[in-house]
Amino acid sequence: MKEKRVFIFNPGPAALPIPVLEEVREEMLSFRGTGMSILEISHRSKEFEEVLNTAVLRIKRLLNLNDDFEVVFIQGGASLQFAMVPMNCAQPGKPIAYVDTGYWSTKAIQEAQRIVDDVCIVASSKDRNYTYIPKEIPIDDNFSYLHITSNNTIKGTQWWKFPKTGNIPLVADMSSDIFSRVFDPRPFGIIYAGAQKNAGPAGVTIVIIRKDMLERIPKNLPTMLNYTTFVEKNSLYNTPPCFAIYVVEKVARWLEENIGGVAAMEEINRKKANLLYGYIDSQDFYRNPVQPEDRSWMNVVFNLPSPELEKLFVEEATREGLVGLKGHRSVGGCRASLYNGVPLEAVEVLVDFMKEFARRNG
Amino acid sequence: MKEKRVFIFNPGPAALPIPVLEEVREEMLSFRGTGMSILEISHRSKEFEEVLNTAVLRIKRLLNLNDDFEVVFIQGGASLQFAMVPMNCAQPGKPIAYVDTGYWSTKAIQEAQRIVDDVCIVASSKDRNYTYIPKEIPIDDNFSYLHITSNNTIKGTQWWKFPKTGNIPLVADMSSDIFSRVFDPRPFGIIYAGAQKNAGPAGVTIVIIRKDMLERIPKNLPTMLNYTTFVEKNSLYNTPPCFAIYVVEKVARWLEENIGGVAAMEEINRKKANLLYGYIDSQDFYRNPVQPEDRSWMNVVFNLPSPELEKLFVEEATREGLVGLKGHRSVGGCRASLYNGVPLEAVEVLVDFMKEFARRNG
Repeated sequence: MKEKRVFIFNPGPAALPIPVLEEVREEMLSFRGTGMSILEISHRSKEFEEVLNTAVLRIKRLLNLNDDFEVVFIQGGASLQFAMVPMNCAQPGKPIAYVDTGYWSTKAIQEAQRIVDDVCIVASSKDRNYTYIPKEIPIDDNFSYLHITSNNTIKGTQWWKFPKTGNIPLVADMSSDIFSRVFDPRPFGIIYAGAQKNAGPAGVTIVIIRKDMLERIPKNLPTMLNYTTFVEKNSLYNTPPCFAIYVVEKVARWLEENIGGVAAMEEINRKKANLLYGYIDSQDFYRNPVQPEDRSWMNVVFNLPSPELEKLFVEEATREGLVGLKGHRSVGGCRASLYNGVPLEAVEVLVDFMKEFARRNG
Repeated sequence: MKEKRVFIFNPGPAALPIPVLEEVREEMLSFRGTGMSILEISHRSKEFEEVLNTAVLRIKRLLNLNDDFEVVFIQGGASLQFAMVPMNCAQPGKPIAYVDTGYWSTKAIQEAQRIVDDVCIVASSKDRNYTYIPKEIPIDDNFSYLHITSNNTIKGTQWWKFPKTGNIPLVADMSSDIFSRVFDPRPFGIIYAGAQKNAGPAGVTIVIIRKDMLERIPKNLPTMLNYTTFVEKNSLYNTPPCFAIYVVEKVARWLEENIGGVAAMEEINRKKANLLYGYIDSQDFYRNPVQPEDRSWMNVVFNLPSPELEKLFVEEATREGLVGLKGHRSVGGCRASLYNGVPLEAVEVLVDFMKEFARRNG
């Protein structure tokens, strides 16, 4: 079966590797010879437990997580983590600290403020419309943790050097750049990532918990909001989102076996980003507003000379089979999301289209 | 493509209609001509919004829900609803009331006790090992709500006549019998159902909210734990579990268009249950411990003369392509779950196998 496919630049849910989708299709009526769909098998079957355990192992290998870390799968998206992080990780009498780099970190801050009285915004790039990443982050030894958003999908910025926090655990929303580049996980107390950008479909959030963080979790949190529940029961306290975990395992396998791991993926992502930013910087029709050293490799935002041209650009691109290029509704403009599932070829086709469009409309 | 399939009696995740699985397979690389998988399309695309809105409409039609009711999709399973119900629906100074009919209602009660001080267990069938449904339910005008578990998967009981509660809203966990039979929804303030038994795959919970219940929701709940968030944003406050909702829509369509609605489904379920209980009551090798008028049509539990024979029964049945017949780990024995996705044919094959096994081992 060959379907017409388009080039997908969606901000999330986003492009998935075609071999993954083909396998899902292949197995839909009978998973691994069981005679049952992955949608029908018990989450307590040995087949599903193997899927889950393999997903955890692959994630640990891909991110160089040693035995200090637990990997669990939670529902509710990063938005639920905005509440679970302060519920689980705020310590009495110790403020929780946040860096504000735009839309999603602002949401994380607002949610934390519902949970905890003492929320400290230690740095912000709001002064220049979130077009850069703050470099001076004041760290107080009394913080419970420091929260950052490692990649900012809407403004197109990314942390390339994480803040040095000493003994204060870093907490990061890595929803939009997990598995896209190599980093040292050891300073991170919690990493969470909704799967639907770089890791799989919507419906599951990967949460990585450094074991020492478990000690601070207060008693009597609701069961499903307590990280301990997920760690102690290997994400099987209740029925997990089996299908989403199954796809995450396949994406992680693709990353290990087809791509060659995160370092190899990083090289591909570097090429994709360099190609697009290189073109944007070489001409005047398209403009990227982000401070160059803070540019995101995952979400390349750009403006055209007018909103009318931006609208036309998105329309014509869609007709040419280049989809998902409209900027976030809160900011307008254009955006190409270049997550792991987007091949270099797609960026080449996009740049060719951009050149051609500029020629006709410049 | 024809795969070997088995007869699935899993307690959940559970059998799905084959036409649904075939459609999912068919569309996996290109959903409705978009050139994108349902796993890749934006939750804010018109294509996905149509899926979601159609799912809501079908659920409202199937359950005869008038405009007093909202239907939303929440992640976290029924287990998260065990916390969200008291968080959202307990009123100050008014106890929340629960009927204890076994494992899952006990879990709901324990979770409620973490959230609210005044939890009143108004009736229980614990005295006879949860083999019946309590008939006398004392109702106090001061209750915030009365919570029941409409079908009990582990003990194999089901409510056939819901308690009369006057002005007190009923709240029901219908995870294991939603869409299986006709009922009057009007006395229910909240109905919630994890999809993975009668309505779709794991990873989404259908929550039905009578609009007057929204008025009692306290301010400043965490955003993702507040029913208002889901109602106001049509389940699209953040990225929902798109794939699971997409399958729920297909299962609801199958129920409307292939089966002919819930009343027609009820007739099929009646036949399935009568066939199996009829056989069990006709002989002495298999025994069902439940008080006859409280027997579940969804989960038929039965014992053989010894645990050794039960083990052998499950093993041989599995080899014959009849899977999922082991009783819950907390009670042992055997259990056949006859959810909507299980065809009458499967029950016929099961009963034939049971007869043959009894002949050989009786």
